Amino acid sequence: MIRLVCPRRFCGTVAVALGVLLFVYAQADAQTDPLASWNDGPAKQAVLAFVKATTEQASPTFVPPGDRIATFDQDGTLWVEHPLYAQAMFALDRVRALAPKHPEWRNKQPFKAVLTGNRETMAKFSEADWEVIVGATHAGMTTEQFLGIVKEWLATAQHPRFKRPYTELVYQPMLEVMGYLRANGFKTYIVTGGGQEFVRVYSQQVYGVPPEQVVGSSLLTKYEFKDGKPLLMRLPKVFFIDDHAGKAVGINLFIGKRPYAAFGNSGGDEEMLQWAMAGAGTRLEMLVLHDDAEREYAYGPAQGLPDTKVGSFSQALYDVAKLNGWVVVSMKKDWKKIFQFE
Amino acid sequence: MIRLVCPRRFCGTVAVALGVLLFVYAQADAQTDPLASWNDGPAKQAVLAFVKATTEQASPTFVPPGDRIATFDQDGTLWVEHPLYAQAMFALDRVRALAPKHPEWRNKQPFKAVLTGNRETMAKFSEADWEVIVGATHAGMTTEQFLGIVKEWLATAQHPRFKRPYTELVYQPMLEVMGYLRANGFKTYIVTGGGQEFVRVYSQQVYGVPPEQVVGSSLLTKYEFKDGKPLLMRLPKVFFIDDHAGKAVGINLFIGKRPYAAFGNSGGDEEMLQWAMAGAGTRLEMLVLHDDAEREYAYGPAQGLPDTKVGSFSQALYDVAKLNGWVVVSMKKDWKKIFQFE
Repeated sequence: MIRLVCPRRFCGTVAVALGVLLFVYAQADAQTDPLASWNDGPAKQAVLAFVKATTEQASPTFVPPGDRIATFDQDGTLWVEHPLYAQAMFALDRVRALAPKHPEWRNKQPFKAVLTGNRETMAKFSEADWEVIVGATHAGMTTEQFLGIVKEWLATAQHPRFKRPYTELVYQPMLEVMGYLRANGFKTYIVTGGGQEFVRVYSQQVYGVPPEQVVGSSLLTKYEFKDGKPLLMRLPKVFFIDDHAGKAVGINLFIGKRPYAAFGNSGGDEEMLQWAMAGAGTRLEMLVLHDDAEREYAYGPAQGLPDTKVGSFSQALYDVAKLNGWVVVSMKKDWKKIFQFE
Repeated sequence: MIRLVCPRRFCGTVAVALGVLLFVYAQADAQTDPLASWNDGPAKQAVLAFVKATTEQASPTFVPPGDRIATFDQDGTLWVEHPLYAQAMFALDRVRALAPKHPEWRNKQPFKAVLTGNRETMAKFSEADWEVIVGATHAGMTTEQFLGIVKEWLATAQHPRFKRPYTELVYQPMLEVMGYLRANGFKTYIVTGGGQEFVRVYSQQVYGVPPEQVVGSSLLTKYEFKDGKPLLMRLPKVFFIDDHAGKAVGINLFIGKRPYAAFGNSGGDEEMLQWAMAGAGTRLEMLVLHDDAEREYAYGPAQGLPDTKVGSFSQALYDVAKLNGWVVVSMKKDWKKIFQFE
């Protein structure tokens, strides 16, 4: 055993000095680790190796800065999507807020189920039901009015389990990946099945992603010139669905460059990852597996997790991931910390 | 009269030194004038005043860098659009190139007119005729194949009057405005009625505008998974028309921010300029008037210029410009130089 020998009167000083040194060392380590919330393992190593392979001048797969594009799904990849997508929560809150002006909703589905809190019926809502709800809550106003309503909602709404604003329920490890990629010259895009204009309200503040780097689903808008002023009216008609194949189409439409890195968590992201992978050079595809019921949620049939309607990670997707060498991120094993507030 | 008195043997040296000084001064002036190809006048002053008002910290209408958006129409605003838009020239060349595979085109309009060089009929082509031509020449291939075909065409095609590649027929004064705005933190976008994917092929090289900052018209694309690889097939069906009201819609859709400066040259740009102007703070709206038949072209009924089908600048648009304080740029009076090669 090695003992630290010191004259008694200096022992305390030495101990304090050692403590300070250790603290400084730990701080420096935290500061130099761009992925501090990730446990060391294949997922973290894959991100580090990808950045090395694409940004080091000497690398045979070096990518010029202008081509460094990374795309991220939002719901379930960057923030919590359970028990329901935040935007669906917004839509339901809007139905309740608008109900006094629509007495006819009391006896009309899908509104009736929302207004009476009939969870069983709501759980069975079809795509068509949701379209009716979106049409009634997201349209019939100008783009500016819509942004104002979303802003107001985000400031007051709380997640039913975490009792916090939705904008705090972002995954700290993913924010670190976004920041690390940006620090290495990548342009980070959100490519979401959710509403483009909805996400644009908070994308800069929450993710550091400016509105022009949010690709999402959208309603048709109509230019009108009223009282000498132009307006864009949101119509209750779908213009573009940025999900599944729509994600590859949307990336080509809005960015016109193929991503070198793509991040998702469900079947809706498969085509985006396929699209990224089909490019030359080193590419990175990652899928977040929700397997941490304690700290967040555990769902999706992959690896025998409970099946849910929202953000399903099927066994088939898991098999495609394995086959293609896509990195599956286990929230439980790979993430030291899930939320910043922990 | 002031005479430079010098001992005879030094006179030569002094003259050379003075010459060098004058040369250095002129160089420095050219280097410090970001709009060197503009004659001094209200148009040039408007650009300088706008940048001052939006970027100087002390200005009451200072705009944070992230919000500095400038949008530019392309045809007739950034490059030559006469006698026909470059992309229309491309389409006609493609009809001729593809004709051997389509013997039926010989007796079928609108192809017949193109193949027989019937200018009279071609001049009367309707929107529907052009849609048929675009469908036959811009679709039925993957996005990557299309980019390759455009690239090849641009490398060989020449403008009928200037006998130069189209990509050399860009307006030097407008390149200077784009560069000056970018040097002052503005993100420059092309917002064109032309094809988004067409313009993206050369936007970076010609304008310094990356593909993701090109907003344009587009065809529908379809994701397909063939032989283990994803493809995007271009379908002969219009997805989005980025012209007139479509320019305001497209700006909101693709950028999600209102431009502080907008540049156009025809009725198709009016809504874009209205949209920019409706924002708060200092905004700049400019319209290029083609009034220089000698160095470029003179057309559009504004100010009694000859009327043409392509890129018309109507008297009504001129009146709207005057009413709203939009700056009308006279190519003849405001531009010292039109092309870089002059």
